[in-house]
Amino acid sequence: MTATYVTKDGSAYFPNEPKGPSVKTSTVPGPKGKATLEEISQVHDVGAVKFPVDYEKSIGNYVVDADENVLLDVYSQIATIPVGYNNPTLLEAAKSDEAATAMMNRPALGNYPPKNWARMVQEGAIDFAPKGQKYVYYQMSGSDANEVAYKLAMLYRFNNLPRANGTYTDEENASCMNNSAPGSPETAVLSFRHSFHGRLFGSLSTTRSKPIHKLGMPAFNWPQADFPALKYPLEKHTAENEAEENRCIRQVEQILSSHHCPIAACIVEPIQSEGGDNHASNEFFHKLQATLNKHNVLFIVDEVQTGMGATGAMWAHEHWNLPTPPDMVTFSKKFQAAGVYYHDEKLRPHAYQHFNTWMGDPLRAIQAKYIVKEIRDKDLLNNVKVVGDFLYTSLEKLAEKHPGKINNLRGKGKGTFIAWDCESPAARDTFVARMKMNGINVGGCGVAAIRLRPMLVFQQHHAEILLNKINELI
Amino acid sequence: MTATYVTKDGSAYFPNEPKGPSVKTSTVPGPKGKATLEEISQVHDVGAVKFPVDYEKSIGNYVVDADENVLLDVYSQIATIPVGYNNPTLLEAAKSDEAATAMMNRPALGNYPPKNWARMVQEGAIDFAPKGQKYVYYQMSGSDANEVAYKLAMLYRFNNLPRANGTYTDEENASCMNNSAPGSPETAVLSFRHSFHGRLFGSLSTTRSKPIHKLGMPAFNWPQADFPALKYPLEKHTAENEAEENRCIRQVEQILSSHHCPIAACIVEPIQSEGGDNHASNEFFHKLQATLNKHNVLFIVDEVQTGMGATGAMWAHEHWNLPTPPDMVTFSKKFQAAGVYYHDEKLRPHAYQHFNTWMGDPLRAIQAKYIVKEIRDKDLLNNVKVVGDFLYTSLEKLAEKHPGKINNLRGKGKGTFIAWDCESPAARDTFVARMKMNGINVGGCGVAAIRLRPMLVFQQHHAEILLNKINELI
Repeated sequence: MTATYVTKDGSAYFPNEPKGPSVKTSTVPGPKGKATLEEISQVHDVGAVKFPVDYEKSIGNYVVDADENVLLDVYSQIATIPVGYNNPTLLEAAKSDEAATAMMNRPALGNYPPKNWARMVQEGAIDFAPKGQKYVYYQMSGSDANEVAYKLAMLYRFNNLPRANGTYTDEENASCMNNSAPGSPETAVLSFRHSFHGRLFGSLSTTRSKPIHKLGMPAFNWPQADFPALKYPLEKHTAENEAEENRCIRQVEQILSSHHCPIAACIVEPIQSEGGDNHASNEFFHKLQATLNKHNVLFIVDEVQTGMGATGAMWAHEHWNLPTPPDMVTFSKKFQAAGVYYHDEKLRPHAYQHFNTWMGDPLRAIQAKYIVKEIRDKDLLNNVKVVGDFLYTSLEKLAEKHPGKINNLRGKGKGTFIAWDCESPAARDTFVARMKMNGINVGGCGVAAIRLRPMLVFQQHHAEILLNKINELI
Repeated sequence: MTATYVTKDGSAYFPNEPKGPSVKTSTVPGPKGKATLEEISQVHDVGAVKFPVDYEKSIGNYVVDADENVLLDVYSQIATIPVGYNNPTLLEAAKSDEAATAMMNRPALGNYPPKNWARMVQEGAIDFAPKGQKYVYYQMSGSDANEVAYKLAMLYRFNNLPRANGTYTDEENASCMNNSAPGSPETAVLSFRHSFHGRLFGSLSTTRSKPIHKLGMPAFNWPQADFPALKYPLEKHTAENEAEENRCIRQVEQILSSHHCPIAACIVEPIQSEGGDNHASNEFFHKLQATLNKHNVLFIVDEVQTGMGATGAMWAHEHWNLPTPPDMVTFSKKFQAAGVYYHDEKLRPHAYQHFNTWMGDPLRAIQAKYIVKEIRDKDLLNNVKVVGDFLYTSLEKLAEKHPGKINNLRGKGKGTFIAWDCESPAARDTFVARMKMNGINVGGCGVAAIRLRPMLVFQQHHAEILLNKINELI
């Protein structure tokens, strides 16, 4: 790997990419961006806008704002842009007959799938499924996908309850129409403290990130377990961290044995992202799976943010080498399509038990196929690994050089999925703001963390620009 | 309006549309369709598939299946195809630079909107908003859109609770992280018996269609009121129907006065679709709005199925002529984009209280703009009205000719949004199956109803084919 990464066929990746960031205005957004926001607010909420973007001009790893400021983007639309702005392979795919037909003749997939749907699902999801996963249900977003996983787990449990004549009882049929048991039984999903799984009513009941996400919303009485709070550097806290992980597993065990209602599933992120980039060891996830198996609770891995190559593996949980695949894996973001992988046909409920009008979007399945083609053609998983190792090692050096500024550095061996804690929430916010004014778009998470979420086309020369700015501004 | 409808510029609408349906196989799906389903089932659930479709060959009002059977489609992918399969205007739009850029550079809209987002929202939603609506939040599907409407209503209520120092209390901040009150307070949404508002956990708690949609799912303890069960023909049951509607309004009043927790909003479909195509009078909705106003409960109109022209008005609730606009109107299906209209800026919560990664999809907003352009250019609202009146009047005659077969005909003056009850659920299912084998794809709903959901490009000559087949097969 050299500083000027070239593609397999010898051409440079984005030949027209800027050489570096440039910020011309004294604020970001500048005057044009601010005027744009004023216009937008006449028709749409702008309360959370960072800056408006010129998507025509953005290219590769660089996002261009309404004032023509050029920023190196290591946040990537909340970790969703997979292979660069205006990636030529994808733009060509977008103008294909295949895409146009899919876009303008959007089917009710559950009733009337396209005749080539088997191939579309195969090429758009199964060809790069996590090891051991065989089937998919598409959905519209990560939040939707998680809710479908919960529903499949609940239906699996409910449909297998012993019933005298094998069919639902009159009482079940009648009571569910009043939102009451036994037809609508209290059934829970276990999640972890600091997790983020979406903000629909069911997914929000498993999300435990921060109050602003949850205030005012009714929620199901579902349990949460502590997620390990590891100490860094890991190699200096081996025994303590193992004890901490065992404590969390015991808590899971205790909840599964004592919760007031049945628990159908447990959901976990391989790396808790929104909640602060919290990692756990491979052994933790092995123990978690074993504990869930023991209690017949389904294991859902939420790969919405970690999936599609960001950790140097196509799926982050593949780093764990589990003895058997998780029951379900959910995806979205870089995948562009969203949904649930599963491998046991028994999770398919009766007809119409999981059903909605669109059941996903073939257009986004087509897009996913081209994203993965690009990942393979350009050897991007390897790129992420190599650049990630360089970035991590360099950040370790910067942490030594600036004591107390880059704390709890994490993500070693996890590609570019790297984070650290600033000395305080205020210091983090100031750092993010200063980086932006100096041409680097970076994201925060958790209490005081910086999370790096570059695209898969982030190369060593981009990393060097980023590292120089961190060194300068930390 | 003549039998061969032509466009404003004098050209025929879909010059290559088939002259009529043709079914060549002895089953639908035929041998090729069945082989296709076998393939699909290797990667995807096929439990609810009716038949696989050749979307390249489908055109205008005709859907072509995998066996090249050609069916007149008056179900339109569960009422979602707006202006015909492979509509040339839309196909051209799909291949535009604008669409390709939007597709392949999908933004996190809440943080980084496109610099032309004001115009995209204006042209993609506000230009054809229901009267009085000023703002929009996009979402991904009708179910998502309804949940966002519930959240906005709940946040509006919660944020306006009296608090000593104007900010959330420590107890609120702490308790919401445990899914408990007061931070996660019990708060309800009132819906109507037989309604359908989606199948995510919150929307499903308001859906009251049938057990198969609800069995096994935990649900919030939210109330439901009776929706009027009108008797037909309406003109012969004026007094009874008025009494029935007043009874339902009294029930709403009683629930609002006595429910065990606050009710933030009430949601209603202008015509209950999935639940059986149940109508109510304009006066009913006037009374409902007045009752909700009296109790400070927000009024949400779910136009997911009724919106975008299907009743001959752009929005079905515009038929009501309410004194003031509803607080929120939700949309999806024919719109292709989904979301929530609102008109009071006070419904915008604090930054990040309503937020998710994508916050909709600009690509689908662009598509909506072209759909509405087509509706206007081709005068399709007028088409729907004229063809709808012809269809309704002709069905009245068929009902007289076949006593007991076409019962409770409904949808007069509501464009092609027409339905009737068969003599039994079994008779309905047999009729749908026979129609399919004779080249008409028609949908059922409720207990024993047939619902017609043709596209907006359904013309008199298509209606004549449909009527002849009904006459022959009823």
